[in-house]
Amino acid sequence: MRFATGCKLVSFATVAGMLLLPGCARHKTGTAAYAGESNAAAKVIAQRKLTPADVVGALKTFEPPGRRDKYLMFASGGQGGQVLVWGFPSMRLLQEIPVFTPDSMAGWGYGGVGDQVLREGYIPASKMGPRQRIRWGDAHHPALSETHGVYDGKWLFINDKADGRVAVVDLRDFACKQIVKNPIFYNDHGSTFITPNTRYVIETSQYSAPLGGAYAPLRGYKQDYRGEMTFWRFDRKTGRIDSKRSFAVEFPPYWQDLAVSGKLASRGWAFCNSFNVAMYHGNDMNGAPSFEAGATRRDTDYLHIIHLAQAIKVFKTGSFKRINGFPVIPLKTAIADHILFFTPETKSPHGCDVAPDGRYIIVNGKLDPHVSVYSFKNIQAAIAAGPTTWRHDAYGVPILPMRKTIKARIEVGLGPLHTQFDNKGFAYTTLFIDSAIAKWSLGGAYEKMHPDVKPWSLIQKLPVNYNPGHLAVIGGDTEHPTGQYLVALNKWSIDRFDCVGPLYPEDMQVIDISGPKMRLLSDTPLCVGETHYAQIIAYSKIHAWRVYPKVGWNPLTQSVDPNAPMPGNERIVRHGNKVEIFMTAVRSHYTPEIVKVNQGDQITWHVTNIERTPNATHGFAVSGYNINLTLNPGETETFHIHADHAGVFSFYCTKFCSALHLEMTGYLVVKPRATH
Amino acid sequence: MRFATGCKLVSFATVAGMLLLPGCARHKTGTAAYAGESNAAAKVIAQRKLTPADVVGALKTFEPPGRRDKYLMFASGGQGGQVLVWGFPSMRLLQEIPVFTPDSMAGWGYGGVGDQVLREGYIPASKMGPRQRIRWGDAHHPALSETHGVYDGKWLFINDKADGRVAVVDLRDFACKQIVKNPIFYNDHGSTFITPNTRYVIETSQYSAPLGGAYAPLRGYKQDYRGEMTFWRFDRKTGRIDSKRSFAVEFPPYWQDLAVSGKLASRGWAFCNSFNVAMYHGNDMNGAPSFEAGATRRDTDYLHIIHLAQAIKVFKTGSFKRINGFPVIPLKTAIADHILFFTPETKSPHGCDVAPDGRYIIVNGKLDPHVSVYSFKNIQAAIAAGPTTWRHDAYGVPILPMRKTIKARIEVGLGPLHTQFDNKGFAYTTLFIDSAIAKWSLGGAYEKMHPDVKPWSLIQKLPVNYNPGHLAVIGGDTEHPTGQYLVALNKWSIDRFDCVGPLYPEDMQVIDISGPKMRLLSDTPLCVGETHYAQIIAYSKIHAWRVYPKVGWNPLTQSVDPNAPMPGNERIVRHGNKVEIFMTAVRSHYTPEIVKVNQGDQITWHVTNIERTPNATHGFAVSGYNINLTLNPGETETFHIHADHAGVFSFYCTKFCSALHLEMTGYLVVKPRATH
Repeated sequence: MRFATGCKLVSFATVAGMLLLPGCARHKTGTAAYAGESNAAAKVIAQRKLTPADVVGALKTFEPPGRRDKYLMFASGGQGGQVLVWGFPSMRLLQEIPVFTPDSMAGWGYGGVGDQVLREGYIPASKMGPRQRIRWGDAHHPALSETHGVYDGKWLFINDKADGRVAVVDLRDFACKQIVKNPIFYNDHGSTFITPNTRYVIETSQYSAPLGGAYAPLRGYKQDYRGEMTFWRFDRKTGRIDSKRSFAVEFPPYWQDLAVSGKLASRGWAFCNSFNVAMYHGNDMNGAPSFEAGATRRDTDYLHIIHLAQAIKVFKTGSFKRINGFPVIPLKTAIADHILFFTPETKSPHGCDVAPDGRYIIVNGKLDPHVSVYSFKNIQAAIAAGPTTWRHDAYGVPILPMRKTIKARIEVGLGPLHTQFDNKGFAYTTLFIDSAIAKWSLGGAYEKMHPDVKPWSLIQKLPVNYNPGHLAVIGGDTEHPTGQYLVALNKWSIDRFDCVGPLYPEDMQVIDISGPKMRLLSDTPLCVGETHYAQIIAYSKIHAWRVYPKVGWNPLTQSVDPNAPMPGNERIVRHGNKVEIFMTAVRSHYTPEIVKVNQGDQITWHVTNIERTPNATHGFAVSGYNINLTLNPGETETFHIHADHAGVFSFYCTKFCSALHLEMTGYLVVKPRATH
Repeated sequence: MRFATGCKLVSFATVAGMLLLPGCARHKTGTAAYAGESNAAAKVIAQRKLTPADVVGALKTFEPPGRRDKYLMFASGGQGGQVLVWGFPSMRLLQEIPVFTPDSMAGWGYGGVGDQVLREGYIPASKMGPRQRIRWGDAHHPALSETHGVYDGKWLFINDKADGRVAVVDLRDFACKQIVKNPIFYNDHGSTFITPNTRYVIETSQYSAPLGGAYAPLRGYKQDYRGEMTFWRFDRKTGRIDSKRSFAVEFPPYWQDLAVSGKLASRGWAFCNSFNVAMYHGNDMNGAPSFEAGATRRDTDYLHIIHLAQAIKVFKTGSFKRINGFPVIPLKTAIADHILFFTPETKSPHGCDVAPDGRYIIVNGKLDPHVSVYSFKNIQAAIAAGPTTWRHDAYGVPILPMRKTIKARIEVGLGPLHTQFDNKGFAYTTLFIDSAIAKWSLGGAYEKMHPDVKPWSLIQKLPVNYNPGHLAVIGGDTEHPTGQYLVALNKWSIDRFDCVGPLYPEDMQVIDISGPKMRLLSDTPLCVGETHYAQIIAYSKIHAWRVYPKVGWNPLTQSVDPNAPMPGNERIVRHGNKVEIFMTAVRSHYTPEIVKVNQGDQITWHVTNIERTPNATHGFAVSGYNINLTLNPGETETFHIHADHAGVFSFYCTKFCSALHLEMTGYLVVKPRATH
């Protein structure tokens, strides 16, 4: 008996597809169910005599089986080194895109294209030491590519804080294509943030160090240690960062924190916070205080104001030095050519966020219960007022007077970290210590959006569980946010879920911000990474491939691979001890199924999944050789092994592809040297 | 300004804890909301004129924020090489336990204890070739430890199909403690399955090969290739597999498939299916058919019946050979000493499942639309009937006549793969090709549980989306299943969720089996691994540590580490080029913060998280050196680095621990050789 599994599936899929077309009556299910849930919640609140703020909790976003999400949330995976893609607002985890860390499920880093990309991100041999094999990342801030200041659904960028790297993900196949290692710095944090047409990707260093990976003792901190901001030039045609058209600007050794690009009114500018302007450099077991005390001992740090358009001009004139071959505009040039300005900010702030119209830069207090609103217009005026009105720091960077640049300060509560914006003139700030979200009103041009509300004032605080870091509003980083829902990325979840040992999940809480008051809708635990930050985009803007366009597709070049094995052309070619295998995979067999080599052979192995049916992904694992590939329909992968151990090894399909999936196997027979 | 973050949290947590006590009024929320949803679903069904089977879908399990799950599902992560722990039935992913594959989020394999455990699982230097660094796994079948045939919540076992390994997870801290490499086989599949008091963990080979990793050409397949079943002895006192008290039984080179231990009536026995009794060995580019055709060309394969109690006796008498030092009962001994019997089964079945009372062995047809029910009593009778009533295979293994051993055959549909059982005398079988779950009635002693139902008959088929592999019922592998809910682990999800590129998530569908008819409750996409198989246990049986018992805890020894750095005792000790660092971590600083070494130094670095507050986990990343640890409260980790590159490297906390988390950092300064 044999079955046409594929056909069976296609017909099922077609029927299901018709039932589930967006906008069909099924949509009403959700609405009706919402109502049911709201009533249930009201009943509980009444029964338990809890305040609504405690248990608005009894609501939950509702996505019945088969209903699809209107939005996608792209979330960093933190120390997991990946990107997580969530259906939003249902909070169904739809995709894990491996980036900096190998992922055997996705066949990333166990042979094939993943190894190639990961290798790009190794620390090259240079002043930075011998070549270093870095096999993990601390993914922090994803940034969707933008056109005219709104997400365009084409690419996603993400940084690795631990080793100062930036990666590019292509949203046609939801796969990472490039990792660039910052050539002058080991770590970063204020990254990735992009300019409104994705011309530049911003990467800012965090913990000061000698540039270029050089050595200098800590006693030389003030003269030898530095910070910097790198502007990576992104090329839409190639879909790659072009290192040759990228450059950095040198900063004083203050620890730079979150960065952001200007929007609309402030396009052509960038901003970042700093901490440890005190230039404290640690408890060397000498009884000195720790960094947490030493780095926070000044009353103010400096908001960095960078004239990017001017920096680009200076870069193009060649006024830079090269460090490890990479162009760096020296601090002195940045000062002389009016690229860099400071203005004071209350000490150790964290998030630096620009309002959608670009007129206001919001500095989140962290150790100050306020958010401080800086006016871009005022900053420009303070710059125009000229050097006689400025002070200067020890390195000669102009300091614009805070009383001139600041527009408003809003007391929101303890531990303000990050701010996002909606489409109604409101801002939302996470309060890490209060464990709450503060909603507050923007002023200025935003006042006409909410004439009944006092501008620059706190509207509501909603408790969350617990300790929110970042938050994300739909479209919240763009020039035109969508609003509607917010997600709080809470770092602690103690007592919120069943205890599963001493490592607790984080907790992502979805909050309805469509009405006058915020309402908590759902909790989603997170244990596969730390969602450090996220961006949310309408699903309609994503045009992902359901299947690779052609058979023999190389996901790195996004074109047919000239070496792709094709049906009928499978073969094993030997030249001396070099063996090249051209193999195809289809439900449910490989061709060839038997591979005989000699111990010591160098094998180059190509495999093409020749399927055209969406979802007909095959795996390819080789026992004993640490190889596992994921081959999506049409995909070709190539890996190399040195057949250094003799014996009989199975290879097999690791994706359950058909009823005869277990039979999709073969033998790699490695003949011992002694018997050649 | 300074904040007592910890205290703030504790008070919040306490309040939250009181609000969320199990059994409190909050529980009613769920019930009320369910009702609301059911009505909504009914309305949709009426409006759309769909059959209930299409849209029972409009229901969803409901867990409002703060409500905790009554069950935990332990699911393999497939090619992800990990274990996933889900709150059930809400399908909230609560924990990812890294096992065979490094996981930088959990600090597994980037320095510390994870590296130690992963190294245990490398393929040792032996006939199996030079030492091989295997850094991923294909996790298949999790098995919870049992006492008297029911899950006891103490340990979890899981296998790696790709490289033939078995791991032990301790459910006090939800962390892997041991990986054992099978010394005689590269791959496995029928694993892990345990005996009813967790005395033995069963691991069965899949694709036949010469035992012990030896080489033999394929032309010698029948004489040189073999299968085997390993019985790993588990020691509850040490919480480890004891290789010295473990052994294997040699099998003919049929490809063994799923295995299972006997229960109640059949305790002391084990069973496994086989395929490719044809001993086909592949398309060697000679025009021969592929494995999927060649391996399925016989009408029957053999159900393997293993008298485990007898095998243990034989092992204890020393009647075994050693391969790579490991005791193996030879096939001839297994035959002569009545350890191994066969009975025919329709070709290429898949799952082999034993009914809760141990009287019936269910063989799932895969290429046969039936499940075949073998009676253990009949098998015993057929054995007792003696050699004159048996046939023998080419190797001399007795074949018990199928007409004597079989009890019933139930036509359930296309592609039956796996069966689970409830507490009401019903069985549930996944139909891979039909994309459905079949519910059918057990007979025999089970008839009295459902007197109105015809025994051994199909009751209902519920469509799922699509291609279910395994399924799991609460307590479904035990002698006393719980029933209530079932989860179908569907391999394909085409058209079910938003498209996120050519790699589709799998789909786990929760089904209510508490009533007379199965009802679909929810869909959960799965993209962080393949949930190959799962077991579901009551949360009340799990007694996980909220925090490690003492400061300085070594998670491998589960005791205080004699080398653990303790508060006040932090230091850096140098002997020649060997440097040993004793560091503590607490919100929000490390002591010491500055580490100065010379290029070329060998560093042993211990870090203790001295926190006692649950959830106060710290990370520890070192730039440039590929190190990232996860330090739960009380935990001590030790790692080694060779300071082979000079420069200034930051280390920092990767878990967002407090408002001053970013200040939790320090410098590793490596002085270049030239300047020593």
